[in-house]
Amino acid sequence: MSSSYGERIRLSLFGQSHGEAVGMILDGLPAGESIDLEHLQNFLDRRAPGRSRLTTSRKEADRPRFLSGLWEGKTCGAPLCAIIENTDARSADYEQLADIPRPGHADWPAWVKHHGCNDYRGGGHFSARLTAPFCVAGGILLQLLEQRGIQISARLFSVGEIKDESWDAKQSFWPSPQENEWGLPVFDAKAAAAMAGCIQEAAQAGDSLGGQVECCVQGLPVGMGEPFFDSLESCISHVVFSIPGIKGLEFGSGFACAGAKGSENNDPYQIQEDRICTASNHHGGILGGLSSGMPLIFRAAFKPTSSIAQKQRSVSMRLLEERELQLSGRHDPCIAIRAVPCVEAAAAIALSQFVF
Amino acid sequence: MSSSYGERIRLSLFGQSHGEAVGMILDGLPAGESIDLEHLQNFLDRRAPGRSRLTTSRKEADRPRFLSGLWEGKTCGAPLCAIIENTDARSADYEQLADIPRPGHADWPAWVKHHGCNDYRGGGHFSARLTAPFCVAGGILLQLLEQRGIQISARLFSVGEIKDESWDAKQSFWPSPQENEWGLPVFDAKAAAAMAGCIQEAAQAGDSLGGQVECCVQGLPVGMGEPFFDSLESCISHVVFSIPGIKGLEFGSGFACAGAKGSENNDPYQIQEDRICTASNHHGGILGGLSSGMPLIFRAAFKPTSSIAQKQRSVSMRLLEERELQLSGRHDPCIAIRAVPCVEAAAAIALSQFVF
Amino acid sequence: MSSSYGERIRLSLFGQSHGEAVGMILDGLPAGESIDLEHLQNFLDRRAPGRSRLTTSRKEADRPRFLSGLWEGKTCGAPLCAIIENTDARSADYEQLADIPRPGHADWPAWVKHHGCNDYRGGGHFSARLTAPFCVAGGILLQLLEQRGIQISARLFSVGEIKDESWDAKQSFWPSPQENEWGLPVFDAKAAAAMAGCIQEAAQAGDSLGGQVECCVQGLPVGMGEPFFDSLESCISHVVFSIPGIKGLEFGSGFACAGAKGSENNDPYQIQEDRICTASNHHGGILGGLSSGMPLIFRAAFKPTSSIAQKQRSVSMRLLEERELQLSGRHDPCIAIRAVPCVEAAAAIALSQFVF
Amino acid sequence: MSSSYGERIRLSLFGQSHGEAVGMILDGLPAGESIDLEHLQNFLDRRAPGRSRLTTSRKEADRPRFLSGLWEGKTCGAPLCAIIENTDARSADYEQLADIPRPGHADWPAWVKHHGCNDYRGGGHFSARLTAPFCVAGGILLQLLEQRGIQISARLFSVGEIKDESWDAKQSFWPSPQENEWGLPVFDAKAAAAMAGCIQEAAQAGDSLGGQVECCVQGLPVGMGEPFFDSLESCISHVVFSIPGIKGLEFGSGFACAGAKGSENNDPYQIQEDRICTASNHHGGILGGLSSGMPLIFRAAFKPTSSIAQKQRSVSMRLLEERELQLSGRHDPCIAIRAVPCVEAAAAIALSQFVF
Repeated sequence: MSSSYGERIRLSLFGQSHGEAVGMILDGLPAGESIDLEHLQNFLDRRAPGRSRLTTSRKEADRPRFLSGLWEGKTCGAPLCAIIENTDARSADYEQLADIPRPGHADWPAWVKHHGCNDYRGGGHFSARLTAPFCVAGGILLQLLEQRGIQISARLFSVGEIKDESWDAKQSFWPSPQENEWGLPVFDAKAAAAMAGCIQEAAQAGDSLGGQVECCVQGLPVGMGEPFFDSLESCISHVVFSIPGIKGLEFGSGFACAGAKGSENNDPYQIQEDRICTASNHHGGILGGLSSGMPLIFRAAFKPTSSIAQKQRSVSMRLLEERELQLSGRHDPCIAIRAVPCVEAAAAIALSQFVF
Repeated sequence: MSSSYGERIRLSLFGQSHGEAVGMILDGLPAGESIDLEHLQNFLDRRAPGRSRLTTSRKEADRPRFLSGLWEGKTCGAPLCAIIENTDARSADYEQLADIPRPGHADWPAWVKHHGCNDYRGGGHFSARLTAPFCVAGGILLQLLEQRGIQISARLFSVGEIKDESWDAKQSFWPSPQENEWGLPVFDAKAAAAMAGCIQEAAQAGDSLGGQVECCVQGLPVGMGEPFFDSLESCISHVVFSIPGIKGLEFGSGFACAGAKGSENNDPYQIQEDRICTASNHHGGILGGLSSGMPLIFRAAFKPTSSIAQKQRSVSMRLLEERELQLSGRHDPCIAIRAVPCVEAAAAIALSQFVF
Repeated sequence: MSSSYGERIRLSLFGQSHGEAVGMILDGLPAGESIDLEHLQNFLDRRAPGRSRLTTSRKEADRPRFLSGLWEGKTCGAPLCAIIENTDARSADYEQLADIPRPGHADWPAWVKHHGCNDYRGGGHFSARLTAPFCVAGGILLQLLEQRGIQISARLFSVGEIKDESWDAKQSFWPSPQENEWGLPVFDAKAAAAMAGCIQEAAQAGDSLGGQVECCVQGLPVGMGEPFFDSLESCISHVVFSIPGIKGLEFGSGFACAGAKGSENNDPYQIQEDRICTASNHHGGILGGLSSGMPLIFRAAFKPTSSIAQKQRSVSMRLLEERELQLSGRHDPCIAIRAVPCVEAAAAIALSQFVF
Repeated sequence: MSSSYGERIRLSLFGQSHGEAVGMILDGLPAGESIDLEHLQNFLDRRAPGRSRLTTSRKEADRPRFLSGLWEGKTCGAPLCAIIENTDARSADYEQLADIPRPGHADWPAWVKHHGCNDYRGGGHFSARLTAPFCVAGGILLQLLEQRGIQISARLFSVGEIKDESWDAKQSFWPSPQENEWGLPVFDAKAAAAMAGCIQEAAQAGDSLGGQVECCVQGLPVGMGEPFFDSLESCISHVVFSIPGIKGLEFGSGFACAGAKGSENNDPYQIQEDRICTASNHHGGILGGLSSGMPLIFRAAFKPTSSIAQKQRSVSMRLLEERELQLSGRHDPCIAIRAVPCVEAAAAIALSQFVF
C-alpha cells in the first residue's frame, strides 16, 4: 500500500499540499529518450491553477526541477526525480481543519487512519496538489508514447448538465480539442460558452459543478493488455480512479450498453484497407481486456468541487459536536476543467506498463 | 503482467475454458481460519451455470478440489490451491473460432497477441469460465471478512431498461436480496418478473441483454484505503474490471454527481449515537480514497452477452475476408445475473488487501 | 509475503509435503514456445529421490500433470499450471512432529508463526518436496533460455571437506559435468569416488554431510541487470536462498576477494576477437549489478541434511520440557547432491526476469 | 526492474553521483512515529566520507533535507522523501570515463545497457554515493525497529587477512562495537591497529583491501519470515547484495557448514528460563526461512575498492583498442569500513517488510 504504481514503469508520488515540495520518481524509462521540457511545461500549464477566472486563483509556477534521471537533455537510465517547491501555500487558511472536517474531503477518515497525525493543511498528501507531479510523469510519458505512435487526448465532455454533443465518441477519429476563449477544452464553442456561464453562476453562488472528461487513445497496437487483473480496463481504471474527485468511469458505450441488446451492442468485424477492424466501436477499443485496434474511449465522471464557499454542516472531531463550517480558501468551481490533462496523464501512466 | 492480483492476499488464476481444469491459488491467508465448505459451495452455486432456464445449460459441477492450504478443516498458512476439473466442455462447438472471431469477444486481439497460438476453444484463458475459481477465492474471503464484521452483498440492479427501483442506494441500510421464483437476486418481485420476461424474449430472439449489478459493503472501519493508487476506488475498480463483460463502474452517486452542484452532492457531517457519520451518502462510503464508515456502494454495468444465436458479421483472420458467423454453443442471455456473486467476490478480493 | 516470485515471469508454488499435491503456476511466458516434456522429465529426474543409494529411498514419480498453459505442445499464453500428486507419503512417520520439533528444520518457528495450525507432516509447505514444482518451473525456463543462447549448468563442488578441484571457475569455459557411476555431478571421477565414500560413511553413522554447488551461466548479453535492488546478485541470491538448506552464497571470487588487494582482484579489460572482455573473472560475470559478458559464476553452501538418524536433543513445544528425538523417515545423507538441478532452476528463474 | 524495494515498506532511490542531488522515498511508515534527527545524523556520519585518513577525502555534508512525510517532528502517514544535494562533486576527474571503463566498476556494462547515454560521471546512478540515501532510509528504520525491541548492529569482521577474532558469533549476545582511535568499528583494539596498518600500507601503494562485515540482529520474534521466496535469507540477501561491492554472504555457520556433519551442525533445542531456544547457533537465527528467536547472524564479503591509484589495463569502448588507465579521484582504500552502517541499514530495510 503506497503512493506508487506500476511494475515496468514505476511512478512514486510524494509531498503534501503545504509541505516543502511535491514531487515524483519515474523509474524504468529507457535511456536515451529526449524529453522536450518546453512541451512538458505547456502540458503542465494546462493543469496549473490561476490561468483563468474559471479556476482557482492560487498561483503556483509548477515548474519542475529535475534532480536526477536527465542528463544532457536525455534520459540516462537512472530514475527520474522531479520536485515542485510549494511557494504560495497559505497554511493559515486551513487552521480550522485540525478539528472540523470539510464535507467531501478526506479530512475525517484521514484523521482516523493516521491517529490525528496527518498533515491536514490543504488536505496534506490527499490534496489534488499532488496531481502536479502526477502530470509531470504523465506529460513525459505522453511524449514517449507519441514518439511510438500512440496519441492520447482528452476533452471536457460535460459540465453540470451541459454536454459537448459536437462529436461522436463511437466514430474512429478524434480531432484535438482546441481551447477557446474560455480556456475550456471542448470542441463546440457554443457548449463552451454555456459551460462557462454555468460555472460563473455557480461560483457566484458559492457553489460548484461536476463534469465529465472523455479520453481517446489512438495508435495502440492490437492485442495489448491481459485478461483479468491486467486488463486494459483494470489498469486504466486503477490509475484514473487515483485522480481525486472521480466517482465513475465507463469504456466505450459504458453504462448505456447495460440497457442494450447484444445484437445492437456487438461490433461486427469487417475488412478495411486489408486490415481487420470493427464497423462500430461500442466496445471502446477493448475486447477481453486487450486493445482491439479501434480507438480506446473512456469517460470519467468528476464530482463537483467539494470545497465551496457556502456554509456547510460539519462536526468537531475531538468534541463529537456538530459545527458550522465556512471555507475561505481559493477553490475551483469545477475541478473537471483542470482534470482534463490529469486524465490524459493517467491514461499514459497506465498504458506505459504495456509499452516499455 | 499476469493473471494475479494483490500483495498481502495474492490471488492467481489459471486454466482455459476447455483445458483440463481451471483453478486458483490464494496466498497470504492467516493460519487457523475455518472455511465452511458447504457455505462456499452455496456461494459457488449462485454463479454456476445450468441452474435455471435463464442461464446457460452448460453444466459444470463447479466443485473445487483443494490441493493445498487446508488441513483438518482450517487454513494451515500454506498457499491455498483449488482446482475445478472441466468435465462438460464441448470443444467441437468452437472449431470455427480458429479462424473467425466472435464479435464482442477477445478472439481477434488474443490471436494477434499470442501469434495464433492461443487456446481459442471457448475463449481459452479469456473465458468467463475463469470466474469459477475467481469465486472460489472470493467466497473464501467473503467468509473471512464476515467473521471480521464486514458484509458484502450485491444485487441485480437492472436488466436492459428495467430497474429494480425498490431500494435507495443512498440510504444507510442494505437488506439481503432474497432470490425469487425466477432465481433473480433483486428486491422487488415485480421487477424480477419483468426482467425475466425480457430475458426470455431476448433469448427466444437469439439475442441478449445487458444489466447492472449494485454492491454494498458494510462494516468497514473508518480510514481504510490510501490516497491515489491504492485508493479504495482504484483497488475495487481494478478487480471489478477484471470480471469479463464490465464496461462501466460508479461509486455512490457516480455519473449523476457529474451533473450536480457541490451544495447538493456534499454529504454534511453529523453526530449520531456519539459517532461521526454523514447525513447522506452521495460519496458512496469513500472519501479521498478512504472508507468513511458509511456503506460503500458501487454499481457495475455489464454489456449484453456477446455470444448470441443470431447471425453476425465477422471475418476470416487468416484470409482477411469477411464472413458470416453463427454460434451454436450454450450461452447466457444476460451475463449480469450470474455476475452478481462475481461482483461480491471482486469486492472481497479488493478489500482483503486492506484487512489482512 | 507469499510463495511467489517475479514480476515479468511470475512463479507461484503451492502444496505440502504430505498434502494431496504440490505444484506451481508459471505466468508470463510468451505464447508459442515449444516445451520438450521428455527433456523436462530428464531434468526432474536429476532432482527426484530414489535414484541411487546416495539419496533418500522415498519414491515419487515426480511426473508433472499440466492443467493449463500448454496446448498442442506449445505455450498458449495462459498461465502454466502443473501439479505433482503426492503418492508415497508416509504421514505416520511424522506423528511426533506435532509436538517435538526436529533440530535444523522449521518445525518450531512454523508452529509459532501459524499458532499451531501448520501442517507439520514432513515439514508441510516448508518441505524440500516443494523443490519438485520449483524444478518444473526451472526446467521449463532453462529450455527457453537455452533457445535464446543462455546456458546454465551447475555441479557439485564439494561434499564435506572434499572438493572437486579439477576445474578453475575463473576460466571462461564450462564443460557440462558428466555424471559418473556414483550419480554425482562432478568433473573428476576420483573426487566423485571420495565423495561417495564419505557420504556412505556418514549415512552408516546415521549422520549427514554438507556440500557446495557451483553454477555457471554463459551466453548472457552484456548489460543485463540493474544497480541496487535489481542487481543480478540481488535477484539470483533472492531465488537461490529460497532453496531449503542454503546458508551461504558467493559470486566470482566471493569470500576470497575479502582477503585480496584491489590490484589482484580487479579484472583488467582487454580486446579479444574485436570484443571487450576481461583477462580474468574474479568478478564472476557481474559488475555493478550488471552482466559483464564473462561467465556468471556463483557457489552456494548447503548445510548437512538436518534429518539424521542419530538421537537428538529436542523439546516438547506444548509442555516446555526437554525431549529426545529419533527420526525414522527416509532422508538424504547429503542434500547438496539433489540440490544441483535446484540451483540451475533458481538461476533460470532469477535470470528470466531480465530476458522476457 | 527499478531502484526500489519492498511491498509494505517501499524504498525508492534516485540520483547520480554528480547530478543535482541523491535521495530516497520511504513509503508505508505508520503515522505518528517520532524520528530523532540528531540520532539519524550520527548514523549517517558513520557512513559519510572524509571522517578519517582511512577513508576518501571527498567531503559531503550528507545532511538530508526532508521534503515530505515528516510534520511537527513525526511521520504524518505520507511518503517520506529526503534529498541530499551534491555539493563537492568534481566532474572533471571523470572525463576519461566517457570512453575508458574502470576495472571492477559498472562503467562498461552500463555503457552497453544504456546505449552510451548513461551519466558516467563518478559512476552515475551506479555510484556508492547512493548508499547515502540508502542509509537515510535504513537509519530511520533502525530507530523504528529499536523502538519495537529489535536491535541491529554490525562490525568490521576482517580487513584483508586480518580478522577480529575477539568475539564468537555463535554465542547469543552481541555487545555494541565501540569505535576506537582508528575509527574502525571492531571489538579488539589490537585487531583495529593491525587493520589500520594494512590499510595505510595499501593506500600508500596505491592499492586497496577487501574486508568482511558481520551483522547481528537481536529481538526478532519467533516465526517471522516465510518459506521460499520470502525467507529471511532471501529478503536480507536481496537487500544486502544491493550494496555496491559485496560478493559473498553467509548466514550462521555459512560456508563452514558445507564442510560439517549434521550431528555437529544441528543446533539442539533446549528449555531456558521457560523458553525454547537452541544450545548453539550454527543456523544463525533462521530456520526454514523463519526467525528462530536466536540472534540472526550474517557476514558479507566486500571486495577491495575497485578504484585504485595504480595504473590499470583497460580499453577504449569506442575504438575497441587497449588503453592504460590511471585514476586520480579520491577513493577509500577499504570500502568495508564505511560499509558497516550500510549493512545495518540493509538489514533494517529487509526486516521492516515483516514488522510493519
